[in-house]
Amino acid sequence: MIDWEEMAARGGASWVESANDPDGGFPLDNLPYCVFTCGDRRHPRPGIRIGSLILDLAGASRSGILEGLDHSVLAACHAHTLNKLMACEPAMLAALRTRLLHLLHARADQATRGAMGVLLSPVAESTLLKPVDPPNFTDFYASIDHATNVGRIFRPDTPLLPNYKFVPIGYHGRASSIVVSGTEIRRPSGQAKPASGGVPALGPSRSLDYEVEIGLYMGQGNALGVPIGVASADEHIFGISLVNDWSARDIQSWEYQPLGPFLGKSFATSVSPWVVPLAALKPFRVPAALRASGDPDPLDYLWNPDDQHSGAIDLVVEVRLLTSAMRNAGAEPHRLSRANLRDLYWTPAQLIAHHTSNGCNLMPGDLLATGTISGPHQDSAGCLLELTVGGGKPVVLPNGERRSALEDGDEVILQGYCRRDGYPKISLGECRGTVDPAR
Amino acid sequence: MIDWEEMAARGGASWVESANDPDGGFPLDNLPYCVFTCGDRRHPRPGIRIGSLILDLAGASRSGILEGLDHSVLAACHAHTLNKLMACEPAMLAALRTRLLHLLHARADQATRGAMGVLLSPVAESTLLKPVDPPNFTDFYASIDHATNVGRIFRPDTPLLPNYKFVPIGYHGRASSIVVSGTEIRRPSGQAKPASGGVPALGPSRSLDYEVEIGLYMGQGNALGVPIGVASADEHIFGISLVNDWSARDIQSWEYQPLGPFLGKSFATSVSPWVVPLAALKPFRVPAALRASGDPDPLDYLWNPDDQHSGAIDLVVEVRLLTSAMRNAGAEPHRLSRANLRDLYWTPAQLIAHHTSNGCNLMPGDLLATGTISGPHQDSAGCLLELTVGGGKPVVLPNGERRSALEDGDEVILQGYCRRDGYPKISLGECRGTVDPAR
Repeated sequence: MIDWEEMAARGGASWVESANDPDGGFPLDNLPYCVFTCGDRRHPRPGIRIGSLILDLAGASRSGILEGLDHSVLAACHAHTLNKLMACEPAMLAALRTRLLHLLHARADQATRGAMGVLLSPVAESTLLKPVDPPNFTDFYASIDHATNVGRIFRPDTPLLPNYKFVPIGYHGRASSIVVSGTEIRRPSGQAKPASGGVPALGPSRSLDYEVEIGLYMGQGNALGVPIGVASADEHIFGISLVNDWSARDIQSWEYQPLGPFLGKSFATSVSPWVVPLAALKPFRVPAALRASGDPDPLDYLWNPDDQHSGAIDLVVEVRLLTSAMRNAGAEPHRLSRANLRDLYWTPAQLIAHHTSNGCNLMPGDLLATGTISGPHQDSAGCLLELTVGGGKPVVLPNGERRSALEDGDEVILQGYCRRDGYPKISLGECRGTVDPAR
Repeated sequence: MIDWEEMAARGGASWVESANDPDGGFPLDNLPYCVFTCGDRRHPRPGIRIGSLILDLAGASRSGILEGLDHSVLAACHAHTLNKLMACEPAMLAALRTRLLHLLHARADQATRGAMGVLLSPVAESTLLKPVDPPNFTDFYASIDHATNVGRIFRPDTPLLPNYKFVPIGYHGRASSIVVSGTEIRRPSGQAKPASGGVPALGPSRSLDYEVEIGLYMGQGNALGVPIGVASADEHIFGISLVNDWSARDIQSWEYQPLGPFLGKSFATSVSPWVVPLAALKPFRVPAALRASGDPDPLDYLWNPDDQHSGAIDLVVEVRLLTSAMRNAGAEPHRLSRANLRDLYWTPAQLIAHHTSNGCNLMPGDLLATGTISGPHQDSAGCLLELTVGGGKPVVLPNGERRSALEDGDEVILQGYCRRDGYPKISLGECRGTVDPAR
């Protein structure tokens, strides 16, 4: 008898051949969710990626192969976003995942394969849509390397503010302007002070930047007034995605005192089309980052004994840049940075426990992003502001171009993946965006 | 022939007697929207208040008395919130208002009155629900008196930051924790520094405060990337309400650097049940507040020639407090402050133009709150932080109680209204909330 739970954590072969490449990123162990259309599947619908194919969950729900699963899950498979799936009971979603593992496993019989075959579309022929309409978007500041690098630019002597090691700093972001990977990013206009000083003026941002982040999509939320404890917080995470928190530094620096970032961020935030279930990341759970000697322990409500073995996620995030000149020359995108989610000062569970510690209610589909993910090295800085030390040291690209801010036509490509010996690679896919000229 | 447009702006008698009290606040000229249930009307539905009654819009839509109106408006009358009405064309909503003015006018015939009668419920017997589920919530900082008073507490020499007179400062608030008037407000817990200094700890807030604000509910929004010009911004406002932006000052002051308020605000925001259409406020439009000599002119994108005669709204907001001791003694609520919306440094249109200047897309039902409304006098300060000058001068109530922060059992009552000679009073109703003990 197959132990499907174990298999979900340890890999398994699928009859979908493209899923069995250990470096492909979309094995049976991954099965990320998306919302897509393809050919006759004209209406947006949830799907599950396996290898180079997408399984139509709406069709699967109708076909009978998901028979016996919870009714709310089957109904949610017909929605136009993943929000309704995210509102389902975790146990019912686990049952869906187990069923799909059965159906797509190499041991599935020919009848199953036949029934499944008509429900599969090639990713290459599909249109990937915004997977979730997040009711609320929160952005954290969980990378101590990012906070330190940015702080050092403005306050060389005291880069970290006194609250940083106690409070998982976060703020409310703008939900309406979240767009899916591939959506062009219009360069925003805004009020900024001229570099020379003097009176501010409205104009296209001259300091457009990206920020590489990981987004946590919430599953079931909490009632207003009832905090989520840190020990059970992971149960409220449906899955994760890549997030590019585009930032107009000149707008941001002029507007942000005293109430924080606003129009410097709210013009667009890109998310990847795939939502990787937390279950797929189980083999990559690692101890939370060690705190430096002398750092305070997390306060009780943020203290989770499990953090010492599995609080963090070993997940690599990479940023690449493709300029117009590179594109025209047929060059490959150039990697600007590589960092790891495990280096964050706060774990996903700590972010959720803190967010709800005042009774704030999280809702299914809410997006909680980590903030820029940077690491301790110069080539692990997750935005141009840090990479260029505030613009003073432009990045030099292989073709000789220099960047201290994004130019029109620049495409930023985020990638994320987990690797571990003995396990197939788990990919988050890509989150892309190209800068369009200001209106 | 009756000029209904003119009548809408100049008053008129209704066959609903309770509407004809010039000080009643809910004359034919007002007709604020709500969502309610009452008796057999068990499912939440939109309504319109007239005098002491609510007209059931779902029933009206079914009954035929709204025949000929736009289909999208009629369909929106069956929704459980006002969001769908807010998404309708302004001209179609104006037609609905004109129809209701006809139907409720003293000149309406007996057949009309009979058909309407069965659709009316007493406010006193109705349950008023949260009228809107705002997809996004933005909070501004538009009162220069508030910004100055608060700034002076922390920076006596430079109370106003350099950006204030150029930038309509705002930030994203938390949409999920918006609650309707009457909902108990659980005292939040959170991380704060002890007054004596030292290590922060989690505990119930010791500095709970209210903030009196006006909320603008958006009608039709804008596409991502396409700003709303200041001259047409008012057309995007559906209506206004009272907002209490509850604030935990101790949590806020420890968390807010560098990204702004978060958990100090997100535990609850109260809104009044009535949404007063902008059309009802037309007689109360007044010139925007004069800028002090030496203040910069608004930048071009915030400059609207109309502001000089009708940019602002002459609307009084009052705050009252009822403590447990006062309630037990049968005392009346004590007025803490009275201020006027017209004193804001930025007009509603300027807030909208600024918010969208970077291309950020507003959505129907979005809530844009003004920030605390204070005036130039000590008794016009719109929160306890200001009234007590940072807690140093507690408010003394008529029964001898003192307050520098809210205590459990305290009820805060916000009221808003417009008055002008020759016009009936237009009321926004009340926004109430009582502080429950921490969990």
